Amino acid sequence: MERRRRQVDARKQEQLDPASASGEGPGLIDTDVHNDFAAREDLLPYLPKVWHAQWLAVGTGVGSPYYSPVGVLRRDAGPERGGPPGSDPHYLLRDHLERFAIDYAILTGAGILEMSLNPDCDYANAAVSAYNDYLLEQWLPASPRFKGSIVVNHADPAAAAREIDRLGGHPDLVQVIMCSGARTLYGQRCYHPIYEAAQRHGLPVAFHPGTEGRGVAGAPTPSGYPSRYMEWHNALPGNYMAHLNSLVCEGVFEKYPELRIVAIEGGIGWLPHLMWRMDKNYKALRDSVPWLRELPSTYLRRHVYLTTQPIEEPQEPEHLAQIFRMCGAEDRVMYASDYPHWDFDPPKFALASLPREMRAKVRSANAAALYGLTGRPPAGGRGGASHAD
Amino acid sequence: MERRRRQVDARKQEQLDPASASGEGPGLIDTDVHNDFAAREDLLPYLPKVWHAQWLAVGTGVGSPYYSPVGVLRRDAGPERGGPPGSDPHYLLRDHLERFAIDYAILTGAGILEMSLNPDCDYANAAVSAYNDYLLEQWLPASPRFKGSIVVNHADPAAAAREIDRLGGHPDLVQVIMCSGARTLYGQRCYHPIYEAAQRHGLPVAFHPGTEGRGVAGAPTPSGYPSRYMEWHNALPGNYMAHLNSLVCEGVFEKYPELRIVAIEGGIGWLPHLMWRMDKNYKALRDSVPWLRELPSTYLRRHVYLTTQPIEEPQEPEHLAQIFRMCGAEDRVMYASDYPHWDFDPPKFALASLPREMRAKVRSANAAALYGLTGRPPAGGRGGASHAD
Repeated sequence: MERRRRQVDARKQEQLDPASASGEGPGLIDTDVHNDFAAREDLLPYLPKVWHAQWLAVGTGVGSPYYSPVGVLRRDAGPERGGPPGSDPHYLLRDHLERFAIDYAILTGAGILEMSLNPDCDYANAAVSAYNDYLLEQWLPASPRFKGSIVVNHADPAAAAREIDRLGGHPDLVQVIMCSGARTLYGQRCYHPIYEAAQRHGLPVAFHPGTEGRGVAGAPTPSGYPSRYMEWHNALPGNYMAHLNSLVCEGVFEKYPELRIVAIEGGIGWLPHLMWRMDKNYKALRDSVPWLRELPSTYLRRHVYLTTQPIEEPQEPEHLAQIFRMCGAEDRVMYASDYPHWDFDPPKFALASLPREMRAKVRSANAAALYGLTGRPPAGGRGGASHAD
Repeated sequence: MERRRRQVDARKQEQLDPASASGEGPGLIDTDVHNDFAAREDLLPYLPKVWHAQWLAVGTGVGSPYYSPVGVLRRDAGPERGGPPGSDPHYLLRDHLERFAIDYAILTGAGILEMSLNPDCDYANAAVSAYNDYLLEQWLPASPRFKGSIVVNHADPAAAAREIDRLGGHPDLVQVIMCSGARTLYGQRCYHPIYEAAQRHGLPVAFHPGTEGRGVAGAPTPSGYPSRYMEWHNALPGNYMAHLNSLVCEGVFEKYPELRIVAIEGGIGWLPHLMWRMDKNYKALRDSVPWLRELPSTYLRRHVYLTTQPIEEPQEPEHLAQIFRMCGAEDRVMYASDYPHWDFDPPKFALASLPREMRAKVRSANAAALYGLTGRPPAGGRGGASHAD
């Protein structure tokens, strides 16, 4: 029953975009899959002993005052063997990658990204390094279809750069990732060592939302704290707009011309407005940003990638197509499911809402180019018999 | 009550004759004109003596760390008799209203809105009351084409409500105004007395940007302070998105169903995204906002007015028309010049960028309906031959 449903899902997916079934390049790529650890104990083998008691007692130490009435994790995605959704590599392969015929999943972590917002940088540095080693040993060997993200502590940029240098040569680590909650904006000079290291290794730097207002981060809006989870969640893209604005205005893309930014899970509909406002102001105020040599929107178009989940859902689907055309996003948007979070989008849903001519790029080509995924996964990958149920 | 009847009459008139500009209704209305005082001394006759020394020494006491390389005021708008641009009612009439054939100007003040961000509420209450009395005595009698905004200190909502009760019956005071920089979001319960008083008097409540990050306000972005004026200015709409999100999610428009909000000078292009994101999240998370009886976008469409300056300027003008259609903004957008600020838009410029079928509404009908401006200004108003250039 379960197997049949997955087969049907996969077949529907291939019908949606027949190119995926026939081509030589990779098929569907999911750019936001949250792998979790089953228990805090899982990180202990990789964490210096001095931090064990703290990690077991408080974890990242970065809580949230908001409560989602539908939960944060999908209730139907718990592994058979127990543990939270996303914590069993083999179950995740079956429950998500095989069900939806996904060739590659970019693993973005869970329960660790907010580490940058703990006030103790030493503790944060140790915890993210432990997580990265755990990822390398426990997840990446489980399947060639898993690609990992190097989690860094953005509050200690020199240490973050060292972590990128330590791991940036691993062929299955395809990007750097940090939470978007922060005390200062991402264009500011303190962060440049992170971008320098990422560029040195040819790795994109991804942001992930959901930590706004947590730990030592600023309030989630310029006027303080929303009252409830829904209102807080509605407001998250405001921080993305602020970070991208900062990256452009501070000249980061002139200083690091090969840097690419991935703005995960922040929506897309605000991008045309941001481009237009920045370009308009630039025409009058460019004296204050003399390092910029092109319109601000040009940098956004060239350097920033976005992911689909949670894609906006206008009543008129044509409106979304218009938004994409306004910001030239067809080469910059990548499919993401956000598995196993409550607002998960299956590929059929996310891709069907896009203009037909964009679907092949969004489902695969844009992510393949960004992450250097040139072919289908090796045997043992998609449909690999050893893990099939 | 009287005012509300006038507004209903104006709306009926508009339905009968949508091309109100050509009929008996008012012509061009400018909804954001900054009247200034020539010197701090101008307010002393209206300010209790205990505050004189403080007002003369520090004014609002709310500075800004940002410097605009083109200045904040138009260099060509200084009155012949001296004083800053916008400080001479008669010069403003000639230099702006007569030059552009403007029937009514909604005066939005200058050098006073940020008073809400001074830490001392008693001082702030006294200063805004003094400004309002100065406006009544020095500006509104100068021309029937001037309509005023009651400035309130939003940090002391009970005092703000008393100020609205004190002045709300004046026929030439057509709205309440407060700066958008704040410590807490505008849907939160502390502010409800302001909305209750505004609704009682049939007055819209306007927000004006530019105080983000100043005085006791929160940082201008969820990740702290932009580095320079241009970057700060690019980010201002983020606070509008947060306030509108808060007003809807907190149920303010259910509690005060006749309340109308005017989001001055914040742009428009972000509105479709905000509507779609709020509606999407509402479908999953509405348990947490049980007081909402309609989709969030419905409240925004019904209760929120926007002004044109600074209108977004996409390279393809059709993109702006698409944005308007996405958010149903044709009945909610009003022309604004922002005179005499650096980014001033003359009417021809602002209106030419709009879809043709919207222009009559934006130039006049929407503001006429909102502010209850049913006819042409009395003699001595528009077209005074002596001052025509």
